[in-house]
Amino acid sequence: MISFQRITNEAIAYFKTIVEEKYVLQDEESINTYAHDETEDLKYFPEVVVRPDTAHQISYLLKYCNENHIPVTTRGGGTGLSGGALPVYGGLVIAMDRFNKIIEIDKQNLQATVEPGVITQVFQEAVIAEGLFYPPDPSSRGTCFIGGNLAHCSGGPRAVKYGVTRDYVLDLEMVLPSGDIIQTGAKVLKNSTGYNITQLMVGSEGTLGIITKVVFKLLPYPRLNKVILIPFASAQKACEAVSAIFRAGIIPSALEFMERDAIDWTLKFRSDINIQIGENDKAHLLVEVDGNDEEYIMQELEKVLAVVENFECGEVLFAESDAQKTDLWRLRRSVAEAVKSNSVYKEEDTVVPRASLPQLLAGVKEIGNKYGFKSVCYGHAGDGNLHVNIIKGDLSEEVWKRDVSKGIREIFELVVSLGGTLSGEHGIGLVQQPYMDIAFSEVQLNLMRGIKHAFDPNGILNPGKIFTKQEKVN
Amino acid sequence: MISFQRITNEAIAYFKTIVEEKYVLQDEESINTYAHDETEDLKYFPEVVVRPDTAHQISYLLKYCNENHIPVTTRGGGTGLSGGALPVYGGLVIAMDRFNKIIEIDKQNLQATVEPGVITQVFQEAVIAEGLFYPPDPSSRGTCFIGGNLAHCSGGPRAVKYGVTRDYVLDLEMVLPSGDIIQTGAKVLKNSTGYNITQLMVGSEGTLGIITKVVFKLLPYPRLNKVILIPFASAQKACEAVSAIFRAGIIPSALEFMERDAIDWTLKFRSDINIQIGENDKAHLLVEVDGNDEEYIMQELEKVLAVVENFECGEVLFAESDAQKTDLWRLRRSVAEAVKSNSVYKEEDTVVPRASLPQLLAGVKEIGNKYGFKSVCYGHAGDGNLHVNIIKGDLSEEVWKRDVSKGIREIFELVVSLGGTLSGEHGIGLVQQPYMDIAFSEVQLNLMRGIKHAFDPNGILNPGKIFTKQEKVN
Repeated sequence: MISFQRITNEAIAYFKTIVEEKYVLQDEESINTYAHDETEDLKYFPEVVVRPDTAHQISYLLKYCNENHIPVTTRGGGTGLSGGALPVYGGLVIAMDRFNKIIEIDKQNLQATVEPGVITQVFQEAVIAEGLFYPPDPSSRGTCFIGGNLAHCSGGPRAVKYGVTRDYVLDLEMVLPSGDIIQTGAKVLKNSTGYNITQLMVGSEGTLGIITKVVFKLLPYPRLNKVILIPFASAQKACEAVSAIFRAGIIPSALEFMERDAIDWTLKFRSDINIQIGENDKAHLLVEVDGNDEEYIMQELEKVLAVVENFECGEVLFAESDAQKTDLWRLRRSVAEAVKSNSVYKEEDTVVPRASLPQLLAGVKEIGNKYGFKSVCYGHAGDGNLHVNIIKGDLSEEVWKRDVSKGIREIFELVVSLGGTLSGEHGIGLVQQPYMDIAFSEVQLNLMRGIKHAFDPNGILNPGKIFTKQEKVN
Repeated sequence: MISFQRITNEAIAYFKTIVEEKYVLQDEESINTYAHDETEDLKYFPEVVVRPDTAHQISYLLKYCNENHIPVTTRGGGTGLSGGALPVYGGLVIAMDRFNKIIEIDKQNLQATVEPGVITQVFQEAVIAEGLFYPPDPSSRGTCFIGGNLAHCSGGPRAVKYGVTRDYVLDLEMVLPSGDIIQTGAKVLKNSTGYNITQLMVGSEGTLGIITKVVFKLLPYPRLNKVILIPFASAQKACEAVSAIFRAGIIPSALEFMERDAIDWTLKFRSDINIQIGENDKAHLLVEVDGNDEEYIMQELEKVLAVVENFECGEVLFAESDAQKTDLWRLRRSVAEAVKSNSVYKEEDTVVPRASLPQLLAGVKEIGNKYGFKSVCYGHAGDGNLHVNIIKGDLSEEVWKRDVSKGIREIFELVVSLGGTLSGEHGIGLVQQPYMDIAFSEVQLNLMRGIKHAFDPNGILNPGKIFTKQEKVN
């Protein structure tokens, strides 16, 4: 078992020699703020929060905590959905909000160097202003941090054409628990020089080191896009249409699925969105095609329409104006918040080969019926990434606590049996940890523990996440 | 220090219970064949070669070698350029040529499952026959194996638009030295479920485990492409044009650089290639644009022409027919072989941010002048990946051995100072190992050794590669 030390007054005095006193927080309000993220209604209180702004400050903090066995949890924008930023063992929270500089946008090389506390949307807009494109685009982009996107390998709707966060990372500066500051890669598009620690860091959820700088590759910004909303008479048919679109050789820049309930709840939640939904429409696909050539985009959309006709689609809504396009995207982006505002919930970030989406959706509903819970499903169908929101509604506390986790286990067993896995973009964090045995054998988990040990031998970094036991096995 | 055991008669008798006797090779011819790859003129002899064809056979072999401290080197197509497949400590070579099955091409999900002994070109053509596209495309594609491409994260000309091998790997089946057979990922496009062992394996050069199956994602095959050859009055100007093309918002599907010498030697080497080179042309860019729309491709090429005019280009050759296109590609693909057939050589796989190519090229020539060696440069300029071939020519053995490695060290110091690194796609293997200290601190190397230890505690897998000392540090 891990045994950690509490943070002493001496430790706090030391922290105040590393950063200015005002950046060492112990007041009740701060402690409360950093006790939760966007994951369900969980609360875990840090003992102290420190807000450094240089890698050297983090180096001193980590070295001290490592020597004194104090748990350290790194905190980004606090928008996580798997409890990754929750300090389950208390200890120190390192808040990264002061690492908020865009250091360089290199137009010569189509690269950018940024600090991990930059808000994703701020970064997106800064590169667009230079005619460049950073495609990863999580729903929480207005408040989430680049560092959190790295921690969980965020995706979002454009991943289907442009890939996820990991596909844009060329190099990282990071601090190890020893206090050593290292660089993991180089400013290059191809790298076959030693083990790929850059890629290992992406998705490691703050358990291996603290990232203090990142070099991204960028793309030229596609000048044009068109968005359509396609209604279907059944959710199954909508899911079936998804893989047919790709089989026709089309790669849309977004291909999103929303169940009827997801849309209804969202339109109720956001009265400013002006979209009419037909009475018999049971599910929708939101399709975006982008590029630099209007005619080409129209041709691609026509091909999409030819495909979806075979799946009993209804009348397609073309976003004619920018305002309508914004409305359609606002609708899709607000689903998560709308669904969650409605009831206590648990969100599962299932992902399967995209052709298995219809089976997954049918299975989720069947399992829900078996255990008596309702689910609202939506997500990045083009990637086979279905967010399953399990709704408490008027279920008793007992059923909610006892049966729902059994149902979730069955959902993940189904996902893995379809060739999929537990999380597409939210990470394992705290709440998916009990299901890791479904995807991995003990041998695999031990291998991960071995990697953890090589980086963090005392297990101080974000303990209690991804896998439970942290003992070294080799 | 590592101490290994020799392979005993008892061990050989045991190997013959695992695979049929005819797949355990000890004859002189076989031992000679497996003693070298395409790296310089190096020779290291294995004690025994075994050719298994199932993961279970490899499991038994590894377990035995692990328990008996016998070094194991995995062998693909033998086309490596960094000595990765050379059994420098003798021991067992596991030849993967019987893992040659394309298990499934999944048109529903645009995925394929293959064994690592499949020849890259065989795989490329099998997926093209289904209207699909596997873009990684090393020059050695006609003989190299998928497994070797994974080991070194191969790229090739299309990486500039489509990425490298790692960008297509979704899941691996692999055998650990313990004999355990594990799966690293899932058949999904997004995966944020535990540490990314899949990506860690790619580029790990056979030092962490033996890959026995791989799931790739595929793309729809782009129906059309056009190829042009652009001459320049100086190599510097050609290099400068490269980053200007990207700054104009164009992403070609290939952007290759060849020095005059590279072309001259190739045309001498391959008399079947029918291309005329102007007297004053000092370097060329080969540009390919692909897509599904003829007009769009032409527009993109016109933009390329508008850019290169500013860099003193000569008269551009448009490949009018498929035969001419094939000739241009044959020219580019034959450069490596042609240059190497001419003299003893050393090839360095330098990679820098693409805008730094002109500085790199100038620096390489300057360093060559200083130490008295000639170099022929060519490569994937769009990626900043310049293959520097250092030619022995009539240098004395003494100068070749003493001064050239000093020169190479200076080249790599320059590369790293430009934000680049040691290898873009050939790997570190044996021959680049002495330069690892230029790119990495001892802390970083120890981190890699820690990862190595988690996978391979006895250090039996491909010892003597990537980093020298294999002692566990933590």
